[in-house]
Amino acid sequence: MASVAWTNIGELATADSSMGEGVLGLLTDAAVVAEDGVITWVGPAASCPAADEMVDVGGAAVIPGFVDAHTHPVFAGERSAEFAARMTGTPYAAGGIRTTVAATRAASDDALRANAERLAAEALRQGTTTLEAKSGYGLTVFDEARSLVAASAVTDETTFLGAHVVPEEYAERPDDYVALVAGEMLQACAPHARWADVFVERGAFDVDQGRTILSAARDAGLGLRVHGNQLGFGGGVSLAVEMGAASVDHCTHLTDDDIEALAGSNTVATLVPGAEFSTRSTYAPARRLWDAGVTVAIASDCNPGSSFTTSMPLMIALAVREMGLSPAEAVWAATAGGAASLRRDDVGVIAVGRRAHLVALDAPSYVHLAYRPGVPLVAHVWRS
Amino acid sequence: MASVAWTNIGELATADSSMGEGVLGLLTDAAVVAEDGVITWVGPAASCPAADEMVDVGGAAVIPGFVDAHTHPVFAGERSAEFAARMTGTPYAAGGIRTTVAATRAASDDALRANAERLAAEALRQGTTTLEAKSGYGLTVFDEARSLVAASAVTDETTFLGAHVVPEEYAERPDDYVALVAGEMLQACAPHARWADVFVERGAFDVDQGRTILSAARDAGLGLRVHGNQLGFGGGVSLAVEMGAASVDHCTHLTDDDIEALAGSNTVATLVPGAEFSTRSTYAPARRLWDAGVTVAIASDCNPGSSFTTSMPLMIALAVREMGLSPAEAVWAATAGGAASLRRDDVGVIAVGRRAHLVALDAPSYVHLAYRPGVPLVAHVWRS
Repeated sequence: MASVAWTNIGELATADSSMGEGVLGLLTDAAVVAEDGVITWVGPAASCPAADEMVDVGGAAVIPGFVDAHTHPVFAGERSAEFAARMTGTPYAAGGIRTTVAATRAASDDALRANAERLAAEALRQGTTTLEAKSGYGLTVFDEARSLVAASAVTDETTFLGAHVVPEEYAERPDDYVALVAGEMLQACAPHARWADVFVERGAFDVDQGRTILSAARDAGLGLRVHGNQLGFGGGVSLAVEMGAASVDHCTHLTDDDIEALAGSNTVATLVPGAEFSTRSTYAPARRLWDAGVTVAIASDCNPGSSFTTSMPLMIALAVREMGLSPAEAVWAATAGGAASLRRDDVGVIAVGRRAHLVALDAPSYVHLAYRPGVPLVAHVWRS
Repeated sequence: MASVAWTNIGELATADSSMGEGVLGLLTDAAVVAEDGVITWVGPAASCPAADEMVDVGGAAVIPGFVDAHTHPVFAGERSAEFAARMTGTPYAAGGIRTTVAATRAASDDALRANAERLAAEALRQGTTTLEAKSGYGLTVFDEARSLVAASAVTDETTFLGAHVVPEEYAERPDDYVALVAGEMLQACAPHARWADVFVERGAFDVDQGRTILSAARDAGLGLRVHGNQLGFGGGVSLAVEMGAASVDHCTHLTDDDIEALAGSNTVATLVPGAEFSTRSTYAPARRLWDAGVTVAIASDCNPGSSFTTSMPLMIALAVREMGLSPAEAVWAATAGGAASLRRDDVGVIAVGRRAHLVALDAPSYVHLAYRPGVPLVAHVWRS
């Protein structure tokens, strides 16, 4: 492949406010040119340079490919019966993860990889061009390492989540499990992971346990992420800020101090409205976070227990309906915000030097992603 | 076409409780046979009779095609800017309809039909095999009649909704508009419509005006439907029951008396969670209605102002998450319930004598429609 030009873009959402109108940096009647998969030119369609291949998008809206910075696609089995029970009265609890752990341990490497590939392909069809993928349903040295190998088949953004929950065999001696995660398991997994993550929550790991694991992971050269403040108030956010984590995810229950700490940090708040939808939770205070100056991302949290969706368009609709973001802010959070959550400066924005990951919508404007909830609007996806 | 057999159905949701387990009448390892588009046999895959064409659905779940009993697909223009403003603080008001009325009057017959066809095709791809379609953005004798001609291009379930809102030119003399709707407009429209509908709501029509129009429509041979109790408590439900309407739609704000009246009637409560999602309204009390013995349908209310979606899968997910229906009840309401709302005994259920309108899911169970929100799970649609 040499050069490609996308022309006749009715509305181009660059996700860079310096390039056009509003937070999404909107341009109308625009064009984009890329060479060898990297954007080399963005501007008015009328002055688009020639390219080897010309793609006329027919006046459609074009946005950056979604950056889904929080998914758990490596697992076996499903939990639709648990979901149905929860919807008729049984509350969500982190312990349900253990059901999937048993199925995952029993599955072959091929089955784990096939499941991750199936979900990554499903996500790509819906416009997700960059995907973070966690382990966390193996919870042994062997099963976490092979989970990360499976994750590596679909993305470079792999995350070691041995500290997802304490497995049943360690229920009576959780500190031994923490030592395993921070020791032998980390050593086995670090070669296959870019990130480490800890679920800091009642029923999972406390702040001191989280700090032990994240410190060891940092020493092993991994970037840090935290699951925090999902099921109640707690120390996940403050631990993430203290450790300089790239992201703290969920953030459903935040104090004013949590928001202030995030605003003064480089830690992104990655919100996961799908989990709040599917567990019938309250929603994270995205409006307050945004107004406080926190960098906000939204992600799918795709997993078989609390959020079995890959749909970033639905995440956008929920962020608008339930979290008080404007459609423009929600699309920014699903693209540029996701890139910030993964500390990536090569995706999530349509600008010179970034990868040409583009999504054309069957709609005249990005607003339709929230205005037309549930409708498959992703018409074409280009991921060079 | 002669006979077709669908075999290797992992889970068949018939939507007839007499045929299998639960409200959806579930069968496992099932098959369905149809001749000339009408179902002639339903039973275990192992004893499936031979047919001219054999379709192996690969163990997937199969459900009846959705029956979307409330849509407004005949219009021109869109209102994404109004939507974005509403999501950042401007409340929904019925008067916004007038924006679409102006665009619709200015549009050609071909443009109106093309818009309806585009939305019907979009709905079909998402599993909707029977669609009701209303007029209501013309609001002149000429424009209502041609709107119904456009609606007739996509469905036989056409509904005359001249009484959608009082157009601006009649704002000072609404009773003259009621007389027009019940007189000349009805006469022009009745040949193209199966149903008549009235929007009984503050800002639209009161109960006496609604009764006048519905009485005239009944005399003209049309079946009756009512938009009621959407924006507040009111007389829409009681008028629908009094008139023997097939359905009263929205039902967001109901008194105990309203629910009791519905339970003692043949009027279906057609709930439209998409409108409640996109106007940030409270949700209709589906759980209370169902438990009181009311027949409940769910529909998309597809329209450019308050619910611009054709996604029955998302309506199911919302009915479960927000309205307290179980996944089985929600799927029933989207299929058999929709058929009841349209007083149809030939669609909405997979049983001998019904049309072979089948949907195969990219999932092992109908539960996934709620468990996997936003994910396009409709793999194949058959509408004979």
